[in-house]
Amino acid sequence: MDAEIISVGTELLLGQIINTNAQYISQQLSELGINVFYQTSVGDNRNRLSSILKNALDRSDLIILTGGLGPTLDDITKEVVSEVMGLELYMDEKVLANIEAHFQKRGLKMSENNKRQALIPKGSRVIPNYNGTAPGIYIQANKKNIILLPGPPKEMKPMLKQFVLPYLRENFGCGLIKSKIINLVGISESSLEEKILDIIKNQSNPTIAPLAKEDGIILRITAKARTEKDASVLIEPVVNSIKERVGNYIYSYDNKPIQEVVGEILLERNCTISIAESCTGGYISHLLTNIPGISAVFNRSIISYSNESKIENLNVPPDILNSYGAVSKETAILMASGVRKLANTDIGLSVTGIAGPGGGTSEKPVGLVFVALSSYSGDFYEKHIFSGDREIIKKRSALAAFNLIRKYLDT
Amino acid sequence: MDAEIISVGTELLLGQIINTNAQYISQQLSELGINVFYQTSVGDNRNRLSSILKNALDRSDLIILTGGLGPTLDDITKEVVSEVMGLELYMDEKVLANIEAHFQKRGLKMSENNKRQALIPKGSRVIPNYNGTAPGIYIQANKKNIILLPGPPKEMKPMLKQFVLPYLRENFGCGLIKSKIINLVGISESSLEEKILDIIKNQSNPTIAPLAKEDGIILRITAKARTEKDASVLIEPVVNSIKERVGNYIYSYDNKPIQEVVGEILLERNCTISIAESCTGGYISHLLTNIPGISAVFNRSIISYSNESKIENLNVPPDILNSYGAVSKETAILMASGVRKLANTDIGLSVTGIAGPGGGTSEKPVGLVFVALSSYSGDFYEKHIFSGDREIIKKRSALAAFNLIRKYLDT
Repeated sequence: MDAEIISVGTELLLGQIINTNAQYISQQLSELGINVFYQTSVGDNRNRLSSILKNALDRSDLIILTGGLGPTLDDITKEVVSEVMGLELYMDEKVLANIEAHFQKRGLKMSENNKRQALIPKGSRVIPNYNGTAPGIYIQANKKNIILLPGPPKEMKPMLKQFVLPYLRENFGCGLIKSKIINLVGISESSLEEKILDIIKNQSNPTIAPLAKEDGIILRITAKARTEKDASVLIEPVVNSIKERVGNYIYSYDNKPIQEVVGEILLERNCTISIAESCTGGYISHLLTNIPGISAVFNRSIISYSNESKIENLNVPPDILNSYGAVSKETAILMASGVRKLANTDIGLSVTGIAGPGGGTSEKPVGLVFVALSSYSGDFYEKHIFSGDREIIKKRSALAAFNLIRKYLDT
Repeated sequence: MDAEIISVGTELLLGQIINTNAQYISQQLSELGINVFYQTSVGDNRNRLSSILKNALDRSDLIILTGGLGPTLDDITKEVVSEVMGLELYMDEKVLANIEAHFQKRGLKMSENNKRQALIPKGSRVIPNYNGTAPGIYIQANKKNIILLPGPPKEMKPMLKQFVLPYLRENFGCGLIKSKIINLVGISESSLEEKILDIIKNQSNPTIAPLAKEDGIILRITAKARTEKDASVLIEPVVNSIKERVGNYIYSYDNKPIQEVVGEILLERNCTISIAESCTGGYISHLLTNIPGISAVFNRSIISYSNESKIENLNVPPDILNSYGAVSKETAILMASGVRKLANTDIGLSVTGIAGPGGGTSEKPVGLVFVALSSYSGDFYEKHIFSGDREIIKKRSALAAFNLIRKYLDT
């Protein structure tokens, strides 16, 4: 099955946004063994969209369009597709009711132009959108498959995953490409490669590719096979031999965020935690509280962005701050034990450092960060010197902090 | 002048990389007033590239191709373009010498296949590449302009900036396209459109396009004009009339994040702030502390994820929590005044709500959020019901919280 993707939106042609939708959909279709041969971006213009669609119908079996399904006048995708396909639009009462419910639930009044979103081409199927008002549309006609999805990735992606991909897999899937990702932290890309170079070189299916990311290193193991199961059979032994070499640096698989790995262990063991953050300014708590249900083990954080707050809320003695400074292993450990006592939790976690761009000295440069963990079995700390700008230093500090918990809970 | 961009590379169609080149080139051409009407990605395949190029020649005056200029067999852009344009390739000795020098300089031996990169279509101009071995090529024939650039952004961007854009500006620049973005919050896309529909409809230059984003709504005002100044003269009155209608929903321009807007005002007025977060779990503090130097006005936050923490750290009376619940305007206001007193700051900000997916009831549904601000001049609160998943609700809550400060500081 040959496919192509059409992204609709003048903002793409003005270069105001990057087309992540085309990349995401292409990747997902590739994994099903569906060939994507073209990606086209076109503006909110009837004639040009119409001619692009006609071209696509000449050469592809599956056409996925994203964007242009909004309530406003410049949203024309549905009208143009219906016209080209010769399908009339009708007002779908069920879709309309859903849109009305969406507004009602939020205590908002639906405006008249939102009704346009309930217009559906005759003979098509509606793909529900649980994160917005624009429904997706699936048209099968003249042996062609045309799928319309909304442009915002938060709406498009779940619709693709829940409805479109399962349908395509069942009806058109042919072989697949499967990747497994190993996520590592605390090791550089080059020393990782050195440690597993013979494994990389001996493989052709699956292939192994290392890649440095802002939040650690990833190893992508990619296999081509007829079925999911065949692919797993190829991938698993390679993962195991990598694990034998560098297992202690692996914090997760398939890009599962470290806060989820840690959060799950905390919840499973009912291990309670509190956090004292200085340079990360709330970022660690934010990541942890992205996990649904985490309130069962997490009850508070102190973002102590000043010495006063470290003294008043965390009971760090002024002496310590004077002698060693706010960015020191001594302060880090006392912040961790201080918040643990305050919140009466099993674990206290702390971070203090210099995120920059100002505040660095030759002795304590920008990027110097201490993470510490206080527990029944003692207090632990790590010293790091991270590179990058303020936001990257916050990110790397958070990763190191979560990794400290992971290592503590692992033992 | 109508332009289009063709990106060549199977890795794009597999979704292995995101097409940042198309975005970058589009943006640069737009600023010259050159209309980009299509972006197409196609694989390393002769027939498909050839047919895409023929399509492009039918409809565009300027075609920029990126990628497929490497030394290996799957690099076919130059051959296909030459064939379609009926131009012979010859070995350019000067280009060859440059490529040889490139290798020599790095102490490397040039391999035989690199010679292919010195093949140049007859009658075309060579665009030098100072960061790699693939030269760019400029073909002018039959009133069409075809430009070939290498795929790696590190090579493509400098070539575009140093050679292509100056040439296009001089020969085809027909004024420019300038956009101004208005960022709004607290209003839906559809009711915004309703309020300014007559302004939108009465305009053709500049055009006005609303777009819903996760963090509010944007209005893009786009003008075509001969100069920057002429564009501003067209844009400014439109911005002013929009401001008159919906000014109180505008929080910034040109996508400046709200925390920067608020952070700058706080720093400017030396207005100190402390924060008590419940459902946002540290996200607001994280955003605020992304601003360098913010420690001058921000000294601490309490992430009170439990009733105990609200009682112990923020002095919210247990009675209030029992009678009204943790998610109530009463608790929100007491959290804000509690943290303000604790940290001794000018402003105390608080958020409490239900981020979901669990914890909602019919009376207090997921998405119910109270934001409150405590100050010398009194306490204020807002009640919101947000849609979206846990992370989007956190984002929208943070936006509303910062917006509450903005409105307070505005008055």
